[in-house]
Parts: sequence; C-alpha cells; structure tokens
Amino acid sequence: MSRWKPDARERLERAALDLFAEQGFAQTTVPQIAERAGLTTRTFFRHFADKREVLFAYEEYLPERVAKLTDFDASDLDPIAFIETGLVEAAETVFADQFDRLRAIRAVIATDPGLKERELRKFADLATLLTDALARNGCPRADAELTAHLATTVLRLSLTHWLEQETPERSLPELIRETLSRLRSLTRD
Amino acid sequence: MSRWKPDARERLERAALDLFAEQGFAQTTVPQIAERAGLTTRTFFRHFADKREVLFAYEEYLPERVAKLTDFDASDLDPIAFIETGLVEAAETVFADQFDRLRAIRAVIATDPGLKERELRKFADLATLLTDALARNGCPRADAELTAHLATTVLRLSLTHWLEQETPERSLPELIRETLSRLRSLTRD
Repeated sequence: MSRWKPDARERLERAALDLFAEQGFAQTTVPQIAERAGLTTRTFFRHFADKREVLFAYEEYLPERVAKLTDFDASDLDPIAFIETGLVEAAETVFADQFDRLRAIRAVIATDPGLKERELRKFADLATLLTDALARNGCPRADAELTAHLATTVLRLSLTHWLEQETPERSLPELIRETLSRLRSLTRD
Repeated sequence: MSRWKPDARERLERAALDLFAEQGFAQTTVPQIAERAGLTTRTFFRHFADKREVLFAYEEYLPERVAKLTDFDASDLDPIAFIETGLVEAAETVFADQFDRLRAIRAVIATDPGLKERELRKFADLATLLTDALARNGCPRADAELTAHLATTVLRLSLTHWLEQETPERSLPELIRETLSRLRSLTRD
C-alpha cells in the first residue's frame, strides 16, 4: 500500500473533510478528493470503500478495542464500573487530541440524513460487538446486552456534549463521568 | 384521498409486505406493489413517499403520542415510573394485536443494511421528540435527554425480544417490565 506515501490516508481524509465543508457532502466526488490530495482515485479506493466511509473509517479498529476491553471474566460484572473504565480509557486514548477532527466530521454528518443514519448504525454495531464479547466472557446475555446499550448511549451523549463546545473546555472523561452519575441517580429507587 | 377505497392504504401495505417477503425488498418496485393491491402507482404515492416508507409509516403518529404522554409537569420526574407507564401503555395500545404485522416488517428490515439504518433513525427521532417534550414541561434538559434515551433503549430491546418469539408467548408489557427491572438492578450501587 503505497509505501512511498505513508501519509496518503491522512491526506485523503483531510482533503475530503475540507471539500465536504466547502461545497457540501453530496456535491463532492472521489476524483475531486483525490485531486485535492494530489493522489489518484485508485489510491483513494485502496484506503476507503467510498466517500462516505472517510467519515467512519476508524470503525475498523473497534473489534480489536472491544476485544481488549472485554478480556476478563465477566460473570460477575459491575456494569457501571465497566462502562466508566472502558469509556474513560477510550476517551483518553482513541479520542484524545481528536477534538477538531471529530468536530469537522460531526459537522458534515449533521448536513445529511443518510450520514446520520450511518452514524447510528456505527453505535448499534458497537453495542452488538460489546454484547457478544461480554456474553462470551461469562456475562448473562440479557445483562450483557443492556450493559452494552447503556455504554453506547452514554458514549454517544457524552461525545455530543463534548463536540457541541467550540473549544474542549470540559473534557470528554469529565462528561462521561457526569452522564454516568446522572444515569445512577435517575435509576435510583 | 380515494374515499371510495377506504382500505387502499392497508391493501398497499399488505401487498408490499407480501412482495418484500416473496422476492426481496430490493427487487420489489412500486408498480408491482400497486398492481398486487389492484391500485395505481398514483394511489400508492398518495399514501407513501416510497416503498421504504411502507415499513415506517406509523411514525407519523409519534409526535401526537409523545405530546399526550408528556402532557404533565415534568419538573419532578420519576424517570423509571414515567418510562414504565408510557411504554406499557404504548404496548397495550399501539402494539397490541400487531405482533404478526410487526414481525413481517422486522423480517424485511433484517435483510437490508439501509433499512436497519432507517429503523435506527426512527428510534433516534423518537428520543429527540421525547427529550424536547420533557424539557418543555419542566424537566432539566440533561435529565430529559438521558430519560428519553433510556426509554427508547428499553423499548427497542423489549420489542426485539418480543418479536424474536415465533408466537407472543411472553407479552410486550411483561418484557418491558423485565428490561426496566434489569436496568435498575444493573445501575444499583
């Protein structure tokens, strides 16, 4: 994969996000993205299935991350502690320093109902991955499923609040902990 | 709207679901649906924007139902009680006697990633409607948002479990109460 251009993927992403912002997602073509990046469309298609997938490319790392996160005996799971640990770790690694990039991606997604649907699928797929991984490691399936859906809900809402800010004044881990503590208090007897 | 054929909408839906099941969603065209129903494509388009919307038509009633459900002072909301009351009422009215129809719709949706994304948007839109309605009636916005997302998560999981059954042995209200009690126990300190 184009060893002489190790930054091809990043350049394509940058070019795509710039063009989506300048002229709109629907109006942007793959040849335009490749041209802006100074690369060929063939190179584009070595990195991304289509222009939409530029916005969702990091999904390919999810299975590996979920596997790591769930590599323990889950038969006696503390769901809230698990969600907090997992999400805060993700916030401090995957999402750290990605504020501007994720904000640009989010702005594009907000312009197109089809992209919003695609993003919802991303979170639904993550919930399925997490459910299966927890169940495989001994967590009763119904508990695994609900824990996974709570985790993705908390992640989605916290990410939204984080990226609604113009600057990352409140950090993502802080917003995750806040959402989790709200969850506990709302579901208390 | 074709007064002389008051059942046009139901006939079109029935014809569409039958054709989707027989030959696949992608392979089915609007003229085929209209022909099977003994109606014109023009009549089809008076009732549905496109063939996909046959599967999601009942969404148009959501705003009205959400407005009714949230017509109270929500400044001192008990989220779990609110979710239980609202969902069980919906289960006993909107979803009652719809088991076979919803199961047929679900089977079609499962065959197509685009339809799955569309369904996810349905639940996301419902969460937004609920958030806004609760906030308008005095619930702090962050609480309204989390309550609305918990409600749609519980509804989605309970519906899935209900429709996974070949016959509705376990009722939807029963499954909703079970999911809610699991939610409480998982988030308990």
